[in-house]
Amino acid sequence: MGKMIYLDNNATTKVDERVLEEMLPYLKEEYANPSSMYDFSRKSSKAIKEARGKIKDFLGAANEKEIIFTSCGSESANTAIRGALAHDKSKKHIITTKIEHPCVLNVYRYLEKQGYKVDYIGVNSNGELNIDELNNLITNDTALVSVMWANNETGVLNPIAEISQIIKSKNPETKFFVDGVQGAGKVPINVVEAGVDMLGISGHKFHAPKGIGALYVNSKTMINPLIIGGHQERGKRAGTENVPYIVGIGKAAELASDNLQYEMTEVKRLRDKLEKGIIQNIYNSRVNTGLAPRVPNTTNIGFEYIEGELILLHLSDLGICASSGSACTSGSLEPSHVLRAMNVPFTAIHGSIRWSLSRFTTEAEIDYVIEKLPKVIEEITTISPYQAELKALKELKVSK
Amino acid sequence: MGKMIYLDNNATTKVDERVLEEMLPYLKEEYANPSSMYDFSRKSSKAIKEARGKIKDFLGAANEKEIIFTSCGSESANTAIRGALAHDKSKKHIITTKIEHPCVLNVYRYLEKQGYKVDYIGVNSNGELNIDELNNLITNDTALVSVMWANNETGVLNPIAEISQIIKSKNPETKFFVDGVQGAGKVPINVVEAGVDMLGISGHKFHAPKGIGALYVNSKTMINPLIIGGHQERGKRAGTENVPYIVGIGKAAELASDNLQYEMTEVKRLRDKLEKGIIQNIYNSRVNTGLAPRVPNTTNIGFEYIEGELILLHLSDLGICASSGSACTSGSLEPSHVLRAMNVPFTAIHGSIRWSLSRFTTEAEIDYVIEKLPKVIEEITTISPYQAELKALKELKVSK
Repeated sequence: MGKMIYLDNNATTKVDERVLEEMLPYLKEEYANPSSMYDFSRKSSKAIKEARGKIKDFLGAANEKEIIFTSCGSESANTAIRGALAHDKSKKHIITTKIEHPCVLNVYRYLEKQGYKVDYIGVNSNGELNIDELNNLITNDTALVSVMWANNETGVLNPIAEISQIIKSKNPETKFFVDGVQGAGKVPINVVEAGVDMLGISGHKFHAPKGIGALYVNSKTMINPLIIGGHQERGKRAGTENVPYIVGIGKAAELASDNLQYEMTEVKRLRDKLEKGIIQNIYNSRVNTGLAPRVPNTTNIGFEYIEGELILLHLSDLGICASSGSACTSGSLEPSHVLRAMNVPFTAIHGSIRWSLSRFTTEAEIDYVIEKLPKVIEEITTISPYQAELKALKELKVSK
Repeated sequence: MGKMIYLDNNATTKVDERVLEEMLPYLKEEYANPSSMYDFSRKSSKAIKEARGKIKDFLGAANEKEIIFTSCGSESANTAIRGALAHDKSKKHIITTKIEHPCVLNVYRYLEKQGYKVDYIGVNSNGELNIDELNNLITNDTALVSVMWANNETGVLNPIAEISQIIKSKNPETKFFVDGVQGAGKVPINVVEAGVDMLGISGHKFHAPKGIGALYVNSKTMINPLIIGGHQERGKRAGTENVPYIVGIGKAAELASDNLQYEMTEVKRLRDKLEKGIIQNIYNSRVNTGLAPRVPNTTNIGFEYIEGELILLHLSDLGICASSGSACTSGSLEPSHVLRAMNVPFTAIHGSIRWSLSRFTTEAEIDYVIEKLPKVIEEITTISPYQAELKALKELKVSK
């Protein structure tokens, strides 16, 4: 396999060389346990402090003590959600959305078995949350509202600040957790301005390695640790600190801030070019999110009357990596729960592909996909059992 | 600081260069999410499979499906202990030891608050477990027995196979969890021969990076996941796999197996030389563990009538890293719970230092410590308020 065009950056990203460079001393000579007493450990503990400051800045937190390092986005979510509920067991109602990441939804399914009542807010056909539902659901018993910053499959942004205002005006004691994994590095995040109590991120979604996450917990929110043990992370997360990766996620956050303008202009331009190139050249394609506000790197496109898995296999043969949903559920034949919540028509839901770019995506790569994709889709369309419907669709598009 | 002599390998170890070398491709070009569908992810998923096989071999497990990757030893212990108890809630009695790692003890303190009855087995003055206590404590209600393979402070080995036989003969349904963190890489571990149901290890104790652990759970033992979410690790641990570190711990395990003979002969020889050199040259020193069986790299030596923290500061000035207990509790002024359980006399407990070697420790380093330490101890001893007792001790030693 020579050429490799990676358009699955919502699944994971390449580690930035500058991130690896900063990490390497801590994988070599600076191996001290940061909790030790001798001089040798000072550089490690100082490096952790600096990385914590960088994450604080990245998320717009007020104080670096509000940042906890974890091993991944899933651990961040588990720690926030279950940690806050374990600390205050008085309320038993939770509100979340139908389009949260499967990992987060599984936490809520677990909590339902533990006696919590969980309401799931829906979305419109563009993937935008039905905020009105939220307003009606919050009660005195609502312990937690949990909404993702941006959806991993569609890239659609949720109005986090607006949601926070609704929550806090209805019940100031309700905690607000935001899964920030797909927002971080793609759009500006400011937890104070957005009125978020807890927000989790995952390093490998913005060019740090897989295996490191962070969690913002504001000073007014108390949580119990998920991993119980030593005093690390101010008693909120036991385990010897992963110094190299903590340094790495700090550097990645700094670089993501530096590159945010590029992401929101140049990456967006390439994403829009890809999207337009596909829609204009392939009659049985549709953008599943309409005009909903999105992160700049993602587009979710439905190819009608054909199978997504088949498209991905053909793309893989061409060295193009994309996906039909989250990596955590790949291999499942069920259509995406997100697209189902959007009521994407059955004609398009099975053939929907997520394309997610990064700052390393080049114009030549986008041009290559725009060049190669029509033939791939045409080949697969030819063997579709829905030839009459396809013919009607083609005539409709041509007549427009 | 020029010279640096690192004798705190029970706190953490240097990453072996060969481990880093194996990891690097996965921190560079091989960055695919192993759960993805395209060809690009195959190398990552294959690398995880190979690493799992290496850990299986390292621990003597029957099947690689019995190995779960975690982010640290603490997560391994939390997953095993709480995961097994969450899966089968019928029994409410736990037996552990007074000398478990503070991280593990904190899990049991948490479980006591959740309604579990926990019994703590004591040790003799050499740090050896009182096995008879165990025999009397196991009942039909005993859900779990939890004993560490080797103690982190003293290096004393526990008779794991013998303990397993006692447990299984008294109550075959009782699960046996072993914290193997301080045994792995120092002595042979075979979970099948030892009759262990679950065993946790931590990569950074045997020359993999900090931030990766593994957990053996035999096929007869069911656990609920601690981190809930995606399907990774056969549903036992959610979160995108930390491919580089998983590759790293696999390589580190392979190297540890290769080096086990060296560890048990050459590292032991250097440890014994250090121990003898200290005891022979410093009259107010004692080996706290007597003749108890120990891992080959550790010695815990009490310096009577002086303060351990002061010794460590002087050693740090000489570039020598050692410790007075676990890194997780360093900074605490309380004497070690392990040495207290051993009834180490108050004259020695405050001045006890753990020295832990590795395969990278050189004879020249040991010679340097043997040369420099007597003057350090003498200086500190001179300002001790216990001059009369020290004089009596010196005369006693000389007369022997």
